[in-house]
Amino acid sequence: MLVGQNEKVQTEQWKIATHVVELESSIIREILKISSQPGVISFAGGLPAPELFPMEELREAMEIVVTKHGAPAFQYTLSRGIPQLRELLAERATAYDTATSVDNILITAGAQQAIELVARAFIDRGDYIITEYPTYVGALQAFNYYQAKYATVEMDAEGMIPERAEEKILKYEPKLIYTVSNFQNPTGITMSENRRVKLIELAARHNIPIIDDNSYGDIRFAGQPVPSLKSLGGDRVIALRSFSKIIAPGLRLGWMNGPESIMGYFERVKQCTDLHTNTLCQYLIYEFISAGKLEAHIARIIKDYRAKRDLMVQTMRDNFPEGIRWTEPEGGLFLWVELPEHMSAKELLPKAVAMKVAYVYGEPFFPDGQGQNTLRLNFSNATHDNIVEGITRLAELLKENM
Amino acid sequence: MLVGQNEKVQTEQWKIATHVVELESSIIREILKISSQPGVISFAGGLPAPELFPMEELREAMEIVVTKHGAPAFQYTLSRGIPQLRELLAERATAYDTATSVDNILITAGAQQAIELVARAFIDRGDYIITEYPTYVGALQAFNYYQAKYATVEMDAEGMIPERAEEKILKYEPKLIYTVSNFQNPTGITMSENRRVKLIELAARHNIPIIDDNSYGDIRFAGQPVPSLKSLGGDRVIALRSFSKIIAPGLRLGWMNGPESIMGYFERVKQCTDLHTNTLCQYLIYEFISAGKLEAHIARIIKDYRAKRDLMVQTMRDNFPEGIRWTEPEGGLFLWVELPEHMSAKELLPKAVAMKVAYVYGEPFFPDGQGQNTLRLNFSNATHDNIVEGITRLAELLKENM
Repeated sequence: MLVGQNEKVQTEQWKIATHVVELESSIIREILKISSQPGVISFAGGLPAPELFPMEELREAMEIVVTKHGAPAFQYTLSRGIPQLRELLAERATAYDTATSVDNILITAGAQQAIELVARAFIDRGDYIITEYPTYVGALQAFNYYQAKYATVEMDAEGMIPERAEEKILKYEPKLIYTVSNFQNPTGITMSENRRVKLIELAARHNIPIIDDNSYGDIRFAGQPVPSLKSLGGDRVIALRSFSKIIAPGLRLGWMNGPESIMGYFERVKQCTDLHTNTLCQYLIYEFISAGKLEAHIARIIKDYRAKRDLMVQTMRDNFPEGIRWTEPEGGLFLWVELPEHMSAKELLPKAVAMKVAYVYGEPFFPDGQGQNTLRLNFSNATHDNIVEGITRLAELLKENM
Repeated sequence: MLVGQNEKVQTEQWKIATHVVELESSIIREILKISSQPGVISFAGGLPAPELFPMEELREAMEIVVTKHGAPAFQYTLSRGIPQLRELLAERATAYDTATSVDNILITAGAQQAIELVARAFIDRGDYIITEYPTYVGALQAFNYYQAKYATVEMDAEGMIPERAEEKILKYEPKLIYTVSNFQNPTGITMSENRRVKLIELAARHNIPIIDDNSYGDIRFAGQPVPSLKSLGGDRVIALRSFSKIIAPGLRLGWMNGPESIMGYFERVKQCTDLHTNTLCQYLIYEFISAGKLEAHIARIIKDYRAKRDLMVQTMRDNFPEGIRWTEPEGGLFLWVELPEHMSAKELLPKAVAMKVAYVYGEPFFPDGQGQNTLRLNFSNATHDNIVEGITRLAELLKENM
């Protein structure tokens, strides 16, 4: 360093955009740091089970990609993604959801980037978004950058209550309806078919797009399948999907399935963001699915997560004190706990960590910071022994603090 | 589809943000489509030579990653990137640039995302950015989303002219100074050491961060190395780097090296964008570099690109008519051509494509749309035969249209 060698640069005077300075760091990431202390059994993260990652199959896919596809798998590609994978996803969506062409599909860096691209295309400062109450904290983070406001809608066991949603639409003229319709993060609740139909009617009446963040839909281990919002609503719905929970999150691969007429906007905002999604991982996943390995792999995940959820729920039933309620989701990675109203899950967390067990308290999932007596538990990432031991510790903590 | 099955959704009434509707699609992407017609020899793209991708080495790296690292290479990771790769990059920056710690480094989805994160953290609508004139079109696209304005600075053979830059700083109070200091895209010009020192003094006097988009710096095949802006300016400089040109662009891996005090902002804006960069490719590249393979690989690229540049320049000398000037860059992927002032490279392009040769005309690289008589040629992606044949066709075209 030749110029101003001993000088301290006054970076605090650099003009970071005001709304960025005010952005909060993810509380969940902070909790994850605490809960990664040695010996802590953590139900805090949203991580899939690492022992199920199809590493051997992906290693084989790498051989095939190098041999069969070669250089194009390592080169720049189209902003919408490689045609082969988009065609495959369109075929699958046609089979499982509704008639879909390659022009409906855009490959993203995980569903998180799909949420971000939706926010990027639609949201001006101060625009309202309909969300469930509570809702996925990562979506709130993506929306917060654009200074969105929230029109929140209460849920019951069937999901978002449509009458409440319509009141909010009339009052706030929101740009988007954002929902996690299947095995919601954080509550584990799945929207019923009747509610889906009503939500689409609502979207049609007011011509507002529904953003269905459907990252967990493939992981159903109990109950009856419900038709996807996409299959019911067609072009009214922009479906956001992800391979994070059904293959591996480290590949950062997701996709959007939206009306052809607006995909050009997403392509443009994607282009100036990162040009396109990782080419190599698109080819790896294309070969993985083409070899017919995805269905068997999802079946393994379902079996594993069902057993873990069953064990967690049974241990809670056996040990939790009276007055505590929880959801018993039919799929996904999470369940949701409601403590008596006077209790604060946030205040209890340091005590929990002292007892070597961790969770995420509920407030970050509520746009208005409510939900003091709620917490989220993840069951996909822990071993059976740790589920029993961790829930037993948590039960003790709750008994001591009721 | 059960609801409104035969109904056409009026997506054109959906409220896309106004500045997104106005975003132009990349002209370069349009040109790439034209130039990918069969038989066209294209110097239009900015693609590295595919025959040099280290595919075998990356296949081996995949074996090692699966065997040695296992599940963490496929799991979620930190928003700043995996510690191993960040440490390695900090060590290398310490050796080549200036004292750097792991806390200065954030891994991005290519240098394009690094530019985007800088824009995302700094730019409010209407803020000014100092850029070279012309400058990298992908940076303009990233900045345009945030509705930045440009204070452009003319270049000569030594790069941006500092006196002009200072006039613009005084007039426009820009938030950032953006430069492609080495083998600039599009001109191939490298900033001289004297100019670097002056630019840093300027940045110090006005306390404005310098963004050095240094994607090509490792690919020097002629002339004397110049110290990097980072090595001269330390914390005054946020260096943006990329593996796209020295390993493979399809891996979408780049990194930022900036002052520790502001990396938290980039971490936060990265987090809500896509959580973190592809974990698997971070491990692949970590293993590739750790095995000592990067230096030999860069040497291969340098040798190859030097021969291609030499051949292109020689063919131009032998065939281009009088009155046409071009740069003869000491590195990188591009050279820049100036036609006589009355000629329009844009108007000539359809004729060129009819003669089965393509280039990118210069206007998109000028924030004010000037530069009608300029064009960019890429020499890294063509074969020797195609360089000779393509430049010969271009020479014919120019002779016919002088």
